[in-house]
Amino acid sequence: MAEKRVTRQEDYATWYNDLVYNADLAEHSDVRGCMVIKPYGYAIWENMRDVLDLKFKQTGHSNAYFPLFIPKSYLSKEAAHVDGFAKECAVVTHYRLKNAEDGSGVIVDPEAKLQEELIVRPTSETIIWNSYKNWIQSYRDLPILINQWANVVRWEMRTRLFLRTAEFLWQEGHTAHATKNEAIAEAEQMLDVYADFAENYMAMPVLKGRKTVSERFAGAEDTLCIEALMQDGKALQAGTSHFLGQNFAKAFDVKFADKEGKLDHVWATSWGVSTRLMGALIMTHSDDQGLVLPPALAPIQVVAVPIYRTEEERTEIGAKFNELDAALKALGIRFKYDDDDNRRPGWKFAEYENKGVPIRLAMGPRDLQNGKIEIARRDTKTKETIDFLNLPEVIKALLDDIQSSLLQRAKDFRSAHTHTIDSYDEFKVAIEKGGFFLAHWDGTPETEELIKQQTKATIRCIPFDMPSEPGKCMVTGKPSQCRVVFAKAY
Amino acid sequence: MAEKRVTRQEDYATWYNDLVYNADLAEHSDVRGCMVIKPYGYAIWENMRDVLDLKFKQTGHSNAYFPLFIPKSYLSKEAAHVDGFAKECAVVTHYRLKNAEDGSGVIVDPEAKLQEELIVRPTSETIIWNSYKNWIQSYRDLPILINQWANVVRWEMRTRLFLRTAEFLWQEGHTAHATKNEAIAEAEQMLDVYADFAENYMAMPVLKGRKTVSERFAGAEDTLCIEALMQDGKALQAGTSHFLGQNFAKAFDVKFADKEGKLDHVWATSWGVSTRLMGALIMTHSDDQGLVLPPALAPIQVVAVPIYRTEEERTEIGAKFNELDAALKALGIRFKYDDDDNRRPGWKFAEYENKGVPIRLAMGPRDLQNGKIEIARRDTKTKETIDFLNLPEVIKALLDDIQSSLLQRAKDFRSAHTHTIDSYDEFKVAIEKGGFFLAHWDGTPETEELIKQQTKATIRCIPFDMPSEPGKCMVTGKPSQCRVVFAKAY
Repeated sequence: MAEKRVTRQEDYATWYNDLVYNADLAEHSDVRGCMVIKPYGYAIWENMRDVLDLKFKQTGHSNAYFPLFIPKSYLSKEAAHVDGFAKECAVVTHYRLKNAEDGSGVIVDPEAKLQEELIVRPTSETIIWNSYKNWIQSYRDLPILINQWANVVRWEMRTRLFLRTAEFLWQEGHTAHATKNEAIAEAEQMLDVYADFAENYMAMPVLKGRKTVSERFAGAEDTLCIEALMQDGKALQAGTSHFLGQNFAKAFDVKFADKEGKLDHVWATSWGVSTRLMGALIMTHSDDQGLVLPPALAPIQVVAVPIYRTEEERTEIGAKFNELDAALKALGIRFKYDDDDNRRPGWKFAEYENKGVPIRLAMGPRDLQNGKIEIARRDTKTKETIDFLNLPEVIKALLDDIQSSLLQRAKDFRSAHTHTIDSYDEFKVAIEKGGFFLAHWDGTPETEELIKQQTKATIRCIPFDMPSEPGKCMVTGKPSQCRVVFAKAY
Repeated sequence: MAEKRVTRQEDYATWYNDLVYNADLAEHSDVRGCMVIKPYGYAIWENMRDVLDLKFKQTGHSNAYFPLFIPKSYLSKEAAHVDGFAKECAVVTHYRLKNAEDGSGVIVDPEAKLQEELIVRPTSETIIWNSYKNWIQSYRDLPILINQWANVVRWEMRTRLFLRTAEFLWQEGHTAHATKNEAIAEAEQMLDVYADFAENYMAMPVLKGRKTVSERFAGAEDTLCIEALMQDGKALQAGTSHFLGQNFAKAFDVKFADKEGKLDHVWATSWGVSTRLMGALIMTHSDDQGLVLPPALAPIQVVAVPIYRTEEERTEIGAKFNELDAALKALGIRFKYDDDDNRRPGWKFAEYENKGVPIRLAMGPRDLQNGKIEIARRDTKTKETIDFLNLPEVIKALLDDIQSSLLQRAKDFRSAHTHTIDSYDEFKVAIEKGGFFLAHWDGTPETEELIKQQTKATIRCIPFDMPSEPGKCMVTGKPSQCRVVFAKAY
């Protein structure tokens, strides 16, 4: 752990990077743009994945697995898709190495050149729709509701741990439907799944809305999204759900016969969230002392540290915590008892604070005698000494309280940093301080682009719950039917 | 489903491939050597993964994630490793595509050539030990007990679904220890985990043993393995656990200070199983009617098919099965009620037989009236009509019985196809019929190679539980201390 820490105020980007390292979440690898997700970071991701996976299955989806490699020609099949995705990709051109003749190591065997280059998937629409083509003949084969957990690669020049890496882990849902309405309902349902997950597990409030035409996914007819606000006032797109219309079905010639035998192209959606959510989770709750985790996703929800001098004290306190362990397990609480003799209590306190463990317990010989225990919560950094009696129930209630407090705190932060604004001059000044800005926009890509050029702010979404409110575009003065949300974004 | 099926007797390879397609487990993709794992196949793999993952965690391991790409130079660092792995690999040479000037699609941008080529991981020892180098300074940092679930790529010329594919899914454990004995104990422990999984979940008996020097993993000092016998008499290596000595620690310069401050290289293991286990599972139990699954891994353990003519009958029978559904859920049994009106009962019977669902229930209006139900087991293809009363308990007991029967049947098969043999002439004839052959071998790679050249049989392992029995090598007549296991193998 660094002696002196950079605070959020001093340098937000450095604070974030240091936190990811100090909490043992991830690190840069020697492979440009690729990260190593360390066990503690991966355990959080596993918790996220397990919750999402269950929600996907409860909404009728199954998992499957499609190839890592996409033939280059597939990327050219959907016109909009190729522009958005076919550029910064890892390209496999050869399939064999051989020993260098000078004994210096291995070299690429020039004889082993692929006839058609393979692209490491940046997303899997093309390879999956190429399979669906063979799976779908009639309405009986629909809907297809498939999800894939996978690694994908997009060659990024400037990377940041979790937020933007060349390789990342994600899930991508790919569904096929007989009707337009069913596909739209699917895209909306999955956005709700994401929003529910963000709020109730990540304790991260999100705006639900749709992207403007220029911010849409390459190949989509409509892109729905959830947008969160980070502590530095920047927005983060936390998940997207796309209504793809019949674009991929047409590109890959996927038709089905309806009950009357009439042929039509299939309707599609795709939707995904990634390890980027780890970045969102970190930046929503953490403070200058390190990571703060919502209990619902914390690998360790409660840690107990014994304070002892003699082996006898260690044994007695250990016995008490063993009892507690059993009681907490019965309540489904993830508990760790750390009596590692190589580390002092003070070191452990700092370590678990750093790692965002929601509740820390400590007990010394006098506490034991008095039937007392010290209980500290990570989110508020408050502690008190309480009776050992009823501890499991107290802990359970406290975990619930921490979970809801974190959500409330994040909601309050977002409210305090959401502004209604009508003057573009004021906007240009205010946007520098960060936050969500609700403003009128004339609906044209030209104005959107102008604002982006002049302020670096983008339209994060057109929120679903924005009341209709006729007004004038803050830039052009042209009529607008409702406000949209501007922010600078990750 | 094909009208006429190829039997195991007629053509085992075609039988296997047809089964994988007909049971909807997987299919070849258009990308050479890469398969698509379909939802039903993937659900079996998920069950395997979940059981193994729990076992890994119970033995103290955590999951983590390392980069997909390995810099080419890493593969040259461990001398033996490079010979074994640096050859048939997918090589990334470029990181960008661009639009062809003639508008014909996308081409590789020659400007975007990587300075050092990246290899899509065929296994991750090198990239992981390059990280461990920074994680390990002192004995306090040991042991490191990490597992990774990942996709890997080995360019294979002749591929077979699940058994040998260019891309496959697997887990790879990579551990680091302070002492040689601790690392050896870890390698042995993980082999036991695999053997326990194979026998108690896959219902597949395995021989535990060690590989000969020439069959070792590239870079290992000792390779332990589990070997199973398929129904065609071929062996299948189902899992390996390697004691790597200090080879990778030396190659990547990973040292630790012990309690006295003395520096030494770290000791290592690695161990893995892959989607190849799916092939082993299929070939151990299935028959000419399709897949047979052990209940412990079956995505659907019990399927119920209603037989009705009127909507009223359908409703009444459905109500009865709803009751059963709740009762089976309470027992943790995976149940599916299939009242899809688009398919006839006969079609469904064939479908679930095909897919290896261990128990099938059927009920018509007369059964309902009489309080009876038809229960059919997939493994023996027997069926009987029994009282509906106590059905959940009957089903639970029957699932247990099917699980143990399948293991017993596989054990009996193996016993019947395991032969002790002393004459090389007899061996050369007998090996053509398949099976395990226990024979004396003089311990030299030359004799091993000769046998392989002449018969295509390899030494599968030197089993741990083989009694010491002095004898003479069946080929050279030189002395041998115990028998080893020969077979032709996948």
